[in-house]
Amino acid sequence: MMTDRPFTFELNAPGFVPSRYDNHIRRTISSMRGQYHDTAAYEAMAAEGDALLYEVYELARPHEAGELLHGISIVHPGRVGDEYYMTKGHFHTVLETAEIYVCLSGQGMMVMETPEGDWAVEALVAGRVLYVPPCWAHRSVNTGDDDLITFFAYPGHAGHDYGTIEQQGFRKLIVARDGRPEIVDNPRWGEKIMRNDE
Amino acid sequence: MMTDRPFTFELNAPGFVPSRYDNHIRRTISSMRGQYHDTAAYEAMAAEGDALLYEVYELARPHEAGELLHGISIVHPGRVGDEYYMTKGHFHTVLETAEIYVCLSGQGMMVMETPEGDWAVEALVAGRVLYVPPCWAHRSVNTGDDDLITFFAYPGHAGHDYGTIEQQGFRKLIVARDGRPEIVDNPRWGEKIMRNDE
Repeated sequence: MMTDRPFTFELNAPGFVPSRYDNHIRRTISSMRGQYHDTAAYEAMAAEGDALLYEVYELARPHEAGELLHGISIVHPGRVGDEYYMTKGHFHTVLETAEIYVCLSGQGMMVMETPEGDWAVEALVAGRVLYVPPCWAHRSVNTGDDDLITFFAYPGHAGHDYGTIEQQGFRKLIVARDGRPEIVDNPRWGEKIMRNDE
Repeated sequence: MMTDRPFTFELNAPGFVPSRYDNHIRRTISSMRGQYHDTAAYEAMAAEGDALLYEVYELARPHEAGELLHGISIVHPGRVGDEYYMTKGHFHTVLETAEIYVCLSGQGMMVMETPEGDWAVEALVAGRVLYVPPCWAHRSVNTGDDDLITFFAYPGHAGHDYGTIEQQGFRKLIVARDGRPEIVDNPRWGEKIMRNDE
């Protein structure tokens, strides 16, 4: 039930589950088919059960430009093959809309790119604010041993475009090399570009 | 210099001064003339020097609907007479725009009201998120002994309307009674309404 009155909620609850929320979204491994580059590792994990990879607690607001949609994102620690657990990642449907993150706990990276092929990766640590400007697709990756917790807010009219990323992923992957996160090229992204260039 | 690329900054610096900012706004007692109800206490304080009441560190972004203006607000502890240090408070020029606060440290209250005369006061403590819906004017009040620190974000096209509040203040004041904060009516607000009713 949305209110027109001011409201508050607490971030410091156990596990950073906010004391108030409207929607709880759970993304399990079955919802990430085709997103991890090591498909054999993915299929082996998926066969063992539908592991929970990340969760989002959303506060509901009208989808209007003057509102701010906001909530808490929790990416659990783990890997599919050598690739760290991550969110689906998305552009905004209204491309010219920003998003702001405050990292509350954990360690990770935000992988970002523009439709023009520009890319960026920024590290996330507790107490760091990240500004994702308009037109940058973004995906949270948990490179640590604990939950990666972020508070996020974005304009109410932004919308989510998951399809573009689902087709070819991001240009860059975050993988473990000798136990440390490294930024590497996504071979699938290149293939798609090659086909487009034909 | 505004960038079109993602950027980060740290909130956990000493005194919560963010590690990156574009504007530093300092509000001293001389800029708050007419805002505190005890005018004798105000004039006595102002005569002693131009005390710093609050500061804002802003990150610059284009003033467009898809952007999020954001930064850190620091209200210092203290009182003018029995009234706690507070921000000027404002409506947004585009009234139908929200603002979101994350309280990082200290203790305070957000005083809010609508053009229709509805009002609300919410307590601010570390780890609490406050959503100020569209159309609610808002003012931060520091009721504690330490700095009140909040992270804020609002739509880029919102704008600030300070004039409406400067004319008659908010309906409610936060004053010390036996050393504790209390919400009381603002007599000046009533006078103005009386005149409007004539």
